Amino acid sequence: MLAVNAADYPWLILVPRRAGASEIADLGADAFPLMAEIALVSLTLKDVTQCDKINVAALGNMVPQLHVHIVARCKTDPLWPNSVFGAPPPRADDAQVFARFVATMREKLGAVEPA
Amino acid sequence: MLAVNAADYPWLILVPRRAGASEIADLGADAFPLMAEIALVSLTLKDVTQCDKINVAALGNMVPQLHVHIVARCKTDPLWPNSVFGAPPPRADDAQVFARFVATMREKLGAVEPA
Repeated sequence: MLAVNAADYPWLILVPRRAGASEIADLGADAFPLMAEIALVSLTLKDVTQCDKINVAALGNMVPQLHVHIVARCKTDPLWPNSVFGAPPPRADDAQVFARFVATMREKLGAVEPA
Repeated sequence: MLAVNAADYPWLILVPRRAGASEIADLGADAFPLMAEIALVSLTLKDVTQCDKINVAALGNMVPQLHVHIVARCKTDPLWPNSVFGAPPPRADDAQVFARFVATMREKLGAVEPA
């Protein structure tokens, strides 16, 4: 799992370990454990950030390898209620704040690496 | 399932029949049949449209009721490779073309209603 440094939108990316997969359907039955992971990561991210809404997306128009964005959105964030997808690149947070976020998520979820 | 009239991006929306659900995690174990439906609808939409990529997203910042967008993207479409989420409202297709799309998807998938 990757963490994007986005100050206003705490942002994780799940990357199923399946070479050549670009669509969710490419996973076959392994789409089910991916769904379980989406739900778990969503709940944990919501709990940690106290956000208002989780946004989940598998787009992959730019990076073909299947990956799932899980983004914490708050009604007070700069883009709310618009999409962070298609918006300009997010503002990075202070490196220490981001490192703390990664450490917290890693403690709760296991392997989380800065993107 | 709903179909959005978007000429350049054939667009379906899955709406789980669960009042009050806004996050995927709210579905509990019913997230698994949702995942199966996402995979089936993705494959069918890709087959029907011969698109290059399926975009899947559960956002819900504007409409809280849980819903999942499944959008066919082509490398030749006006927004490629950018996101259709956060973009201006899509151009509607000719009503007859859209009706034919809905009929085709309904034939292959069951209940599909124009949004």
